[in-house]
Amino acid sequence: MMGEVAATTGLALDGLRAMFGDRFSDRHAVREHHGRAETFFPAMLPDAVIYPHSTEEVAAAVRHCAAHQIPIIPYGVGTSLEGHFLALHGGVCIDLSQMNHLLRVSEEDLDCTVEPGVTRKQLNEELRHTGLFFPIDPGADATIGGMAATRASGTNAVRYGTMRQNVLGLTVVLPDGRIIHTGGRARKSSAGYDLTGLFVGSEGTLGIITEVTVRLYGQPEAISSGVCEFETLRGAVDTVIQTIQLGIPVARIELVDELQIRAVNQYSGTKLAERPTLFLEFHGTPAGVAEQSTQFGEIAAAQGGDGFRWTTNTEERTALWEARHKALYADMALRPGGTAISTDVCVPISRLCECITQTRAAVDASGLIGPIVGHVGDGNFHVVLVFDPESADEVAKVKALSEQIVELALAHGGTCTGEHGIGMGKKGYLIEEHGEAVDVMRAIKRAIDPAGIMNPGKVFDA
Amino acid sequence: MMGEVAATTGLALDGLRAMFGDRFSDRHAVREHHGRAETFFPAMLPDAVIYPHSTEEVAAAVRHCAAHQIPIIPYGVGTSLEGHFLALHGGVCIDLSQMNHLLRVSEEDLDCTVEPGVTRKQLNEELRHTGLFFPIDPGADATIGGMAATRASGTNAVRYGTMRQNVLGLTVVLPDGRIIHTGGRARKSSAGYDLTGLFVGSEGTLGIITEVTVRLYGQPEAISSGVCEFETLRGAVDTVIQTIQLGIPVARIELVDELQIRAVNQYSGTKLAERPTLFLEFHGTPAGVAEQSTQFGEIAAAQGGDGFRWTTNTEERTALWEARHKALYADMALRPGGTAISTDVCVPISRLCECITQTRAAVDASGLIGPIVGHVGDGNFHVVLVFDPESADEVAKVKALSEQIVELALAHGGTCTGEHGIGMGKKGYLIEEHGEAVDVMRAIKRAIDPAGIMNPGKVFDA
Repeated sequence: MMGEVAATTGLALDGLRAMFGDRFSDRHAVREHHGRAETFFPAMLPDAVIYPHSTEEVAAAVRHCAAHQIPIIPYGVGTSLEGHFLALHGGVCIDLSQMNHLLRVSEEDLDCTVEPGVTRKQLNEELRHTGLFFPIDPGADATIGGMAATRASGTNAVRYGTMRQNVLGLTVVLPDGRIIHTGGRARKSSAGYDLTGLFVGSEGTLGIITEVTVRLYGQPEAISSGVCEFETLRGAVDTVIQTIQLGIPVARIELVDELQIRAVNQYSGTKLAERPTLFLEFHGTPAGVAEQSTQFGEIAAAQGGDGFRWTTNTEERTALWEARHKALYADMALRPGGTAISTDVCVPISRLCECITQTRAAVDASGLIGPIVGHVGDGNFHVVLVFDPESADEVAKVKALSEQIVELALAHGGTCTGEHGIGMGKKGYLIEEHGEAVDVMRAIKRAIDPAGIMNPGKVFDA
Repeated sequence: MMGEVAATTGLALDGLRAMFGDRFSDRHAVREHHGRAETFFPAMLPDAVIYPHSTEEVAAAVRHCAAHQIPIIPYGVGTSLEGHFLALHGGVCIDLSQMNHLLRVSEEDLDCTVEPGVTRKQLNEELRHTGLFFPIDPGADATIGGMAATRASGTNAVRYGTMRQNVLGLTVVLPDGRIIHTGGRARKSSAGYDLTGLFVGSEGTLGIITEVTVRLYGQPEAISSGVCEFETLRGAVDTVIQTIQLGIPVARIELVDELQIRAVNQYSGTKLAERPTLFLEFHGTPAGVAEQSTQFGEIAAAQGGDGFRWTTNTEERTALWEARHKALYADMALRPGGTAISTDVCVPISRLCECITQTRAAVDASGLIGPIVGHVGDGNFHVVLVFDPESADEVAKVKALSEQIVELALAHGGTCTGEHGIGMGKKGYLIEEHGEAVDVMRAIKRAIDPAGIMNPGKVFDA
C-alpha cells in the first residue's frame, strides 16, 4: 500500500552492493551527507547511497528496490531548500552526480541533452564555445535534473521562463524500472498528454529523471545592467508593471528592499541609499539594450525612480550586481552565528505591492530580521529570515512567520512556492492552495507509483 | 470498465432534457451538426446535445452522465481537424459555445479568465480597448477552450509560444462531476504536479474545461512585415535558423513553397516568383522592428534571399500577407470540386530542409497536389492535400501519403502533430512516437476517468 514500505533489509541492500560495488555505500558519513538539509528538518538518513552511471543502472536499481519495497530517493547535489531528499522512510538514495555528461548539443536547434547530474554552471562552461547558453539560474549551482524535478527558475525567468518552459523532453525511469521518453526534440507537439510537464516539478515522486533535453539561447550580443532607487515600494512595483506591459524584454528585474540594502552597506562598506531598489539587466543588440535601458529609465523617472544608471561595461555591471549577489552573506552577517532560511511566495504582480507591504509589517511585528529580495517581474519574492537555530523561541517564531507569509500570499491569489517546491514542509499549503486538485495529483501518483516507493512523504501524503 | 459504456438510454436522456429544457436537443439536424467533421471520418452523431451556461451546469450534466455511464463529448465551435468531437460511442455532446463570457481582465497582470466558448477573435475584440492582446492564432476562429484542449498554436508560436506556454490555470469538471481549479494567477509556481499542463492537450479525455486563464501581451507599438524569396529551400531554412540563433524575436516566419506560390498566382492573378518564400512579421518599438528587419535582410541576402522588402504600413502589410492568407482557397481552386486536408508534422529545425525535400518528393511521386506552408520557426509544416473526396482511389492515396509524411517526420526525430492533436486518426502514430510512455498516459486516464466516459476513443484506445 502506498506509503507503507517495508523496512529496508540488509539482504535487500546486499543486492545493490553486489550490483554497484564501490559505487554503493552505507557508511554513516555518506548517508549523513545525503540526509541532512539546510532547513528546519532534522537529518533523515537513507540506509544506503548508490552512484549509477547510466539510465540502465538506474533502472536495474529501481527494479531491485521495487521488488523489495524499498523507498527510493533521487539526489543531485543537495541544493534543494525544502527537504526534498530527506529519507523520511529510510531507503536508498540514488545519487545522480556521476551521471554528469553533456550528451548532445545542436547549435541549429538551440537544444541539448544532458545527464541529470550536470550542473548549470558546468553546462554553460561546456556550451561557451558554441555561442549558446542555458539561462535558468536558481542561484545555487544545482543540477539540471534537480532543477527539472523542482521546476526551478531564478532571476531571469521573467525573460526566459522557468524549467516548465525550457525542458523539451525527458528520459524517466518509472517506479517499476521501465524506461520512458517524454516529449521530444520538435519545438512543439500536440501528441498526447504532456508527460514532460507532469514530471517537471514532480519532485522525484513519480520516477527518476535520467536525461533532460533543454532549450538553449544565443548568448546576447550586448548586455546592459542598471540600478534604480525608488522613493516608495509602490513606485518600484508600478515601474515593473509598466515595463512588462510595454513589452520591454527585460532579462532580469530584481527588487532589493531597504533592509537588504542596509545589510549590504554594513557588510560591504557601500553607501547605497536605503530605499527600495531595482536591479536590472537587458539582453539584445547594442542598439536594443540602449533603447530598452532608456525606455526603462523614462518609466522609472515618472514613478519616482531616482538616479537610474546603466552600463554595458562588464566590470561596472559586475560591480552593480554586488549588492544583489552578496545579499545572503550580508544577511547572515546581520546576526553573527545565525542561520537563514528563505520564504518563496509568488503573487499576481497587481498584488505584489500590498503583499510585500503586509509581509514587511508581519516580519517587523515578529521581531525577526528579514530582508526581502524579489524576482519581481514574476511576482516572486523571498524573505530571508535570519535567526539563531539554537533558540527554540526564535525557531518557533520563524515557523509561525513563514506560515503567516504564505497565508498572506494565498489571500492575494498567489502560490506558496514560486520556485523552491513543496518538499516536506509545505504539504499543508498545497492543499490550501489547490484543494480537490490535490486528489487528482494523488490519483496520478497512485497510478504511476502504486507501491508508493518513489520519494515517499514529499509533495503530499498518500 | 474503460471504453465499455452502456448504450445511451432514452431514460437517461430524459433526465438531461428535464435539466436543460430548450437547451437540450436530440433533433437530427443538431446532432448532425455536432457529429460531422471536415475530415476523412464518417459522421458519428451524439445522441443529444446540451448547451450549459455555467460550470455548475456542466458538473450536474457530467454527474448525470456518469451515473448512467453515458459518454460525454465536449464541443466548442467544431473547428478541430482530427475528429475530436465525433461521437464514436454515441453519448452526449456538451456544446460550450454559450459559455462565451470574458470573466475578468487584469491589465496589470497581463492575464484574463474566459469561459471556454469565447473565440480568439471575440477575445481580441473585447481586449482591444485595453491595449492588450491574446496572440495564439491557429487560423480558424476557434474557442479558447478548444484551443487549450488540443494544445493549439499557429503562426506566431515562434514568438509567443503555444497554448502550453500561455494557459496559466483552468477550471475543470472531472469525469465524476467534481470541480477543480488548476494552476493559478501567479506567473510561476512550483506547488505540486502541473495539472494545467496535463489538461492542456488532453483533448477532452480527462475532463471538461469550463474556465481558462491565459496570458496576455501588450499590443506591439510597431509591426513590420516582409517577404523574401529564396533560390533554394536550404537557403530559406538556413536563414530561419540563423535568425533564431541570433535572438531576433521574429513574431511570424512562414514558409510558402513554389507550388503554393503558383496556386496563389493562379487564384489571385499575382505574379510572384515561384520560389521558396518566407513571409515575416516583427513586433516591437519602431526602432526595434527596423533593426530586426534590417538584421534579417542581411542574413537572408547571405543565403540567397532575394528582394527582401519590408514595411510598417498597415495596408502594405495586409497586401504582403495576401498570398499566405489565401493559401487554402488558392489550393482548393487547384482542383475544382476538390476538398483539402492538412498534414501537421513538426521536426527539429536542423532536419526541416531534408524533411520538406523528402516530403515534396513523396507528394510528387503520389501524383497528388500538395502545396506546403510552414510555421517554419518551430519546424512545423503543413502539406495541403487537395483531392476529390468522391474518388476512392484518391482518398486511398491521400491516406497512404499522409502516413508516409508522418513516417518521414518521425524518422527525423519529429512529431506526428505540431498543433492539431491526435484525435481519432493518429492514435497509431502516438504509440510509434512515444512508445511505452503511452502506457503512462493510459494509466493517468484510468486514474482520472475509470469509467472511460470522457470523449472515449480519442488520443489512444483504452
